[in-house]
Amino acid sequence: MSDSQSQILEKMLGHADTRLADQLRFIIEIDKLKSILRQTRLVDGSRRENDAEHSWHLAMMALLLRQYADEAVSVGRVVHMLLIHDIVEIDAGDTFLYDDNGKADQEEREQLAAERLFNLLPNDQAARFRKMWDEFEAHKTPDAKFARAMDRLQPFLHNVLTNGNMWAEHGITSKDVLERMSVIGEGSTQLHQLVKDLVELCVDEGFLARS
Amino acid sequence: MSDSQSQILEKMLGHADTRLADQLRFIIEIDKLKSILRQTRLVDGSRRENDAEHSWHLAMMALLLRQYADEAVSVGRVVHMLLIHDIVEIDAGDTFLYDDNGKADQEEREQLAAERLFNLLPNDQAARFRKMWDEFEAHKTPDAKFARAMDRLQPFLHNVLTNGNMWAEHGITSKDVLERMSVIGEGSTQLHQLVKDLVELCVDEGFLARS
Repeated sequence: MSDSQSQILEKMLGHADTRLADQLRFIIEIDKLKSILRQTRLVDGSRRENDAEHSWHLAMMALLLRQYADEAVSVGRVVHMLLIHDIVEIDAGDTFLYDDNGKADQEEREQLAAERLFNLLPNDQAARFRKMWDEFEAHKTPDAKFARAMDRLQPFLHNVLTNGNMWAEHGITSKDVLERMSVIGEGSTQLHQLVKDLVELCVDEGFLARS
Repeated sequence: MSDSQSQILEKMLGHADTRLADQLRFIIEIDKLKSILRQTRLVDGSRRENDAEHSWHLAMMALLLRQYADEAVSVGRVVHMLLIHDIVEIDAGDTFLYDDNGKADQEEREQLAAERLFNLLPNDQAARFRKMWDEFEAHKTPDAKFARAMDRLQPFLHNVLTNGNMWAEHGITSKDVLERMSVIGEGSTQLHQLVKDLVELCVDEGFLARS
């Protein structure tokens, strides 16, 4: 943010009480999520997807696919989790699912990011958002397991529909994909089965090297 | 979608039962919302915002600002409404808030779009989504009024932070802005007051012509 823009922001926030000012500061800060690019391309292949639109897409999927969750889920909580799950990437950047080097310090980077970003909010909301994000990261509850299934399924579908170009680009094989997609099985047996069938389809179509 | 991509899509959907196939077809169709551009620019001014990331931002705002709703709202319903409120623009395009000509046939275009798009879903979900969208459009319930307040507040904040460039570009004055922002007052007196104060700030800063 330029100096003059920061000045306008402070003048703007000066018109709100402390609580609302903190909330608005966070709302404006998270606009940056729209500029964090992922490896996945849009279905039409035109460009890489950003984290904000990705989060929207996952929330939509959760609303539509909840019936396939193996355990009962609260869809409102799943949606909340998905809306906030990537906010830490504003500071930590997107770590590619198949990037084992990037993964080494991913957790540390994301913890620092969560600390800074959620603490822009008033204390009660900061605590609530942090707890929700921690739950997503721990993926032990039914809600978190289903949310993570959405987070894996969506880019997978995009990869199938863009002829697996991203897989080819990064030398990713069927074994790598099946390994990463096993997370879907923790949330939904039926969606996991679909993905396994589609991996076979992709190998048959020549989109994915078998290993 | 190219012919070869359509073929892959049909092969993909062939691995799911009818219900899941209909849901996936919708999920893939709505990826197009990421390519529908609005007039509003990102806070950093780098590019115009698209409908999908805009919808994500509004859902986040609803989660954070619900306390300012004048009437009790169900935040889960507000979030659901905001996630789907612009989907019709995949067919109907974005109609600029200050474009009175575009508004003339906006409703007809959007009704046709709602008819086609929501009916990609299984009947029960199509009916539920359509009802939710109709409620948003009618803006009579507390949930819809608060959702619409979010939909007006977010681009306004972006306009303030980008020096009102979009206002200047389209010859929009303070009276125009105050008129369009009165919708916020139907959902939240406090947020409406903030916006009125910020309109004054923008006039003082020279971002907005007084009228």
